[in-house]
Order: sequence, then C-alpha cells, then structure tokens
Amino acid sequence: LSDAPSAEADQHSSRQKLFICSSFLSYQAADLIIQLSSTPKMKPDVVDFGTVFTDHMLTVEWNAIEGWQTPLIRPFGNLSLHPACSSLHYGIQLFEGLMVYRGDDNRLRLFRPLMNMSRMAKSANRACLPAFDESELLECIRRLVEIDQDWVPCSESSSLYIRPTLIGTEPSLGVKKPTRALLYVILCQAGSYFNTEGKALSLWADPKYTRAWKGGTGDCKMGGNYGGTLFAQYEAGSHGCEQVLWLYGEDHQITEAGTMNIFLHWINEDGEEELATPPLDGIILPGVTRQSILELTKKWDEFKVLERYLTMKQLCSALKQQRLKEMFGSGTACRICPVGNIMYQGKILQLPCLEKSSLSSRIAAELADIQVSG
Amino acid sequence: LSDAPSAEADQHSSRQKLFICSSFLSYQAADLIIQLSSTPKMKPDVVDFGTVFTDHMLTVEWNAIEGWQTPLIRPFGNLSLHPACSSLHYGIQLFEGLMVYRGDDNRLRLFRPLMNMSRMAKSANRACLPAFDESELLECIRRLVEIDQDWVPCSESSSLYIRPTLIGTEPSLGVKKPTRALLYVILCQAGSYFNTEGKALSLWADPKYTRAWKGGTGDCKMGGNYGGTLFAQYEAGSHGCEQVLWLYGEDHQITEAGTMNIFLHWINEDGEEELATPPLDGIILPGVTRQSILELTKKWDEFKVLERYLTMKQLCSALKQQRLKEMFGSGTACRICPVGNIMYQGKILQLPCLEKSSLSSRIAAELADIQVSG
Repeated sequence: LSDAPSAEADQHSSRQKLFICSSFLSYQAADLIIQLSSTPKMKPDVVDFGTVFTDHMLTVEWNAIEGWQTPLIRPFGNLSLHPACSSLHYGIQLFEGLMVYRGDDNRLRLFRPLMNMSRMAKSANRACLPAFDESELLECIRRLVEIDQDWVPCSESSSLYIRPTLIGTEPSLGVKKPTRALLYVILCQAGSYFNTEGKALSLWADPKYTRAWKGGTGDCKMGGNYGGTLFAQYEAGSHGCEQVLWLYGEDHQITEAGTMNIFLHWINEDGEEELATPPLDGIILPGVTRQSILELTKKWDEFKVLERYLTMKQLCSALKQQRLKEMFGSGTACRICPVGNIMYQGKILQLPCLEKSSLSSRIAAELADIQVSG
Repeated sequence: LSDAPSAEADQHSSRQKLFICSSFLSYQAADLIIQLSSTPKMKPDVVDFGTVFTDHMLTVEWNAIEGWQTPLIRPFGNLSLHPACSSLHYGIQLFEGLMVYRGDDNRLRLFRPLMNMSRMAKSANRACLPAFDESELLECIRRLVEIDQDWVPCSESSSLYIRPTLIGTEPSLGVKKPTRALLYVILCQAGSYFNTEGKALSLWADPKYTRAWKGGTGDCKMGGNYGGTLFAQYEAGSHGCEQVLWLYGEDHQITEAGTMNIFLHWINEDGEEELATPPLDGIILPGVTRQSILELTKKWDEFKVLERYLTMKQLCSALKQQRLKEMFGSGTACRICPVGNIMYQGKILQLPCLEKSSLSSRIAAELADIQVSG
C-alpha cells in the first residue's frame, strides 16, 4: 500500500499519454493524475451512514466525440454542473455501493467488487450512459482507497463505503442520450444504516405503492428507482414502521424492502426447510449480498435454497401454521437485518426473530468473516 | 415591462428583509435580489429546442431549518453541487415546462402558467421536496422573463421555453427526505422539438417496455420518469421510428407517447364521432395542452369528447373499419403532432393524417391564436 506514486510523477506521465489515450474508448488507471489535498480533514468517530466523506475523490469525464478523458484523483469538493444538465432533469444517473473492510491483519479488502462493476455496466447500458472499462475503474478505485486508507476504520461494526456514480452532463434540455457524462467516486464513513442497533426492523406493506414494474428499470441502480420511493417510506414512518416492504401484482408478491433484498427462512408448503428469495425477473435489484447469501447457503447444503415467488398470502399462512422461522433483509449498506413485524391490511404480523441461533446471525457472522479475513 | 427596478435598489430592500423573510415558510418575489449580467450573449437565430439559454436564471435555496431563502436572479451559470447531492444519486428532482409567446401586438404571454405551478407543487409533494408558494414563484418567473424579454422571438413557430426545476441538495447518502433543496428557473430558445417539420410522427409500440405503473410516479414530472425511457426511445429509433408509444397491461392500453399525451379522433364503437384520450388514472402525465384541448373541443360541442381507455385492439379495429380519422400527440415542447404510423407486433399501421381539414390542425391553430393574442 506504499506504492502510490507522487502527484508530480503521475501528472507528467499522464500528460504524455493524454492524446494517445483520448482516441481510445477507455481511460487507463495507469494514466491517473493525482492532486493531493493540502488540507486533509480530521477523522471524526464513525457517525451515521454516508454523512462524512474522505479527503479525495475520483473523476473521469466523457464526451461523445473524444470518449473517456484522463482519470483524476483530486481533493474532495463540489461539482460544477450546467443547470440544464440531463442528470438533474431526467434522472440520467446511476450509482453503485461497495464496502472496504479493514481486517484483523490490518489489510484492506473490497468485497466482490467486480460484481458491482458488472452491475454498474448494466445500469449504464440501461440508462444510455457510456460503457466503461470495469477493471480499469476498479484499479482507479483501488488507488483512491489507497490514498484515503487511513479513513477505513479499525472496527467490526463499521467500514468505508465506496460510491461510484455516473451521471449525464449533457447541457441541453431535449430528452435524449447525453453527449457528455461524468463518472466519479466518493468515499464515506459507513456506520449503521438504520438507527435500530440490535433491533429487528418493522416493515409497512401496502399495495397502493409500487417500486418497480416489468419493462421498467427496477433491476438497475438508477436514481429514479429511489426518489420515487421516499413518499411511501415516509408514510411507512407515519405508521411507526422503518421501511416499506414493496409488493407487486394482484397476488401481493413480496419483492424487496427499502434498500434491501428479502429472504424467507421457513418450512415451505411441502414441509421442507427452505431459504427463499424472489427471483431476478426484472423488478428485483440483483444485490451482491443477496447473491453471496444464495451461494454461501447452497454450499452448506443443509436445506433447500431457492429463488421463487413469495406472496403475502403464503407468508401469512406460514406464520399461522408456525412454519416461518425468520425473515430478513440484505444489502451492502444495511448488511443483514432481521424483520420483526410487518404492517399489512390493517394488522401487525409479528414475525419470529432475534433468536441467537437464527440463520440471519449465522449468515451475518460468516459474511463478516469473509469480509475481514478473505 | 419597463418597471424592473435596478439591481442596487433591489439588493438593498432584500437585505433589509432577509432575516424577517427567512423565518417564514415562503420566499417573496418582492424580496428578489437581481444581479444583472455584465456580458449579455449574442442572440443566435432560433435553433434546436433547449440548447441555447438566456442571460439570467432564478435560484431560490431552501433548508429544513430556515425554510426558503431570498430569491435571486443572477447571470446564467453553472451550479456548484456537493457530489453526494441527493438529486444526483436518487433522482430527487422534478421540473416543469411552459412557454412564453410574443404576440402580434408585441406583448408577451404565458400560457396557463398556474396549471404548471400547481402540477409542480404536486410533483414536489410526491418527491418529498419542499412546498413552495405557487403565485410568488410565478411572479419571480415573470420578473426573470421581463429581464430576458429580448430573447422571446418574434415568430409564430418559435417561442421562449421556461424550465422551472426543483432538486434535492442534501449532501449525504442515505435514501431520505432532503434537508436542503434548490429551486431554479432557466429559459431557453424553443425551436421545433422533433426534426420532422411538417411530417407526421412514426411511433413504435412494444409492450416489453413500460413507462409508468399504478402506484408509481408516472403522473408527476419527476426526472426518473424520463431517464428510464431513453433506452426504449433508441430502440424505437433503430426501427426507424421517432418516438415510443407506451402501452400498459395485458390488453395493450394506449397511454402516452414520448413527451406527449395521445388523442384519437374517430368514429367510436357506437358509431359516434369522438375525440378521446386516456384518463388520468395515475400513469398519465396531466398535460396542460391535453387539458386545454379537452376544454376547447368540449366548448365547440360538435362531437363527443371523452377521457377513456383505448387499447391497441380498438385502434386496429377502427383502422380496419375506416373509423379512425386521426391520432395526434400534444405537449408543451412538441405542441400538436399528428401521428403518421405505428409499428406494432411486426406490422406498420398506416394512420390517416396530414389532411388540411384535420382536427389537429384546427386545434393547433386555435391554441396558437390564444397563445399569441390571449
């Protein structure tokens, strides 16, 4: 981690390559220009998720004529954007979220970052934003994290969150594919996402709001999928619930909850022990933690692990017949969150949870183990 | 229009009122601070829609503690935004679009601006962005247009487009109601929206993409509704079509087309002459032009005017039985656009259009008349 070259050396080599580089489709991490901050911040104790940012950020500009420009690591600071910028009017924007953990051995580890790069590439395609080189971006991110490595906390309960972002910067108002874009990456402290330390989540399930639909963009991390959910989230809050459980269709399919995929650990209709989560049919966000849980539990080979449709009727029936063991959410920011109750059709469904031997705590422990010691 | 006070006088009165004002919920147009540009631009010939902006813009900041700040008219220029800004990550953003026309009498007229203010307020509520005073905003806009009045073209085919925008500027990453926001208004030249001068539009209708869904945000002008449509729009282009005709549900209901509401002028199933457009059931954008067409044609009292569901099957059947007179789109930016053909299920449906005596040309002429002479 001590191999970060000086700003001067990097700038020199990058300037030499600038003209060669701009005629290629991709930027190169090797061309990174690094401008170090002369006023590094004090590092406060780890606070709420996503409120304190590190000293540097990565930016890479793109335009339709010259392609990707030289990547730049520079002091964290505001972006200067044209007021007609297509990301501010038409939500032509996408993001990713991944964590960097400090292990007991003091080494830093990214958790399955290529899965994030690949999902980001899919979002970019869906949003009509430019394609980018996934491994070069990851290398640029690695360099950024290296420079701000002191920000990664020595703690099991917190980490540093990486937010790659790609926005359209087309400076005109027609609804069209942007001819300019900006890829940037910022880093922030990641304490607990929900203020429910050790408490199970309460969810509000009302079919009057829909998060995503077939033929839409619900399986991509595009901004519009999130802004549209705030209103329902606050209605959930007014009912004393922390998050929305998003339903779909006439049969009230369980899809996902606010910023989390959803898992059910139960005895299914055929009497088999099963861990189930809704399939990736276009309305579900393909979570990295979701995929990791599926792979991990399949490897255990102790019970059935399945991607399948789950309806509220099936959940209620399992609850009544005491076939439900646990329901939990998973996400990069919120990690593994047991669900304590669901408000649905005027009733509160109390779910079994927070048992010491629960599946969610076992999965959380195994994932944490991989994250901090590979 | 010569009553715009000098920048100095305005700044003085505003500073006096600053502390009083900030404790109220609303900004006041009377407090406007005006900073005139010292380098006004050359006004080019009217070009493509939304590419050339005027010399000034309006900005009003908001934060959850102090509420709305003093409104400011300042030289047009870039915005400085925090890179974690919630409008760039979660599409917490909305916009409006309205035109200012120069009449034969040289007077400037806004077309039904209170309808835009009211729709903007509804979008703000849905997006969890702050409420604002609609008439004070309109007065601020009036002052901005007054200052840049020389930009309103003397032409029947072009006008000045007003783009009010409201974005979340929360500088942190949790998905939550923003504690900071920015309301701003920019003005741009508005030539023809589609490059199809005098030609009827071709639409591509494929149920594999969905624009909006019940329980979503399709009836608000939130950014995410637009960014999600680009991909389908480019697929339409690859089939030689200019825009998407958005279908909904198993029965392929006709909803709206890219940036336009849709009207059908036909002999309905009961043999009656009818002008029909889909009802505002949550997935349709409540267009100002749409509403004006309904009111105008109802006033004529010459045929049935109805908000009703329309399916592709009904359209195909009407076409086969020669009951279809015309289909057209309506919108602020694109005005009235006859539809020439629709690509649907591998076939091209040729629609009757571009007749001199068509309903769309009569409506377009009457609306233009109102717009330029009140």
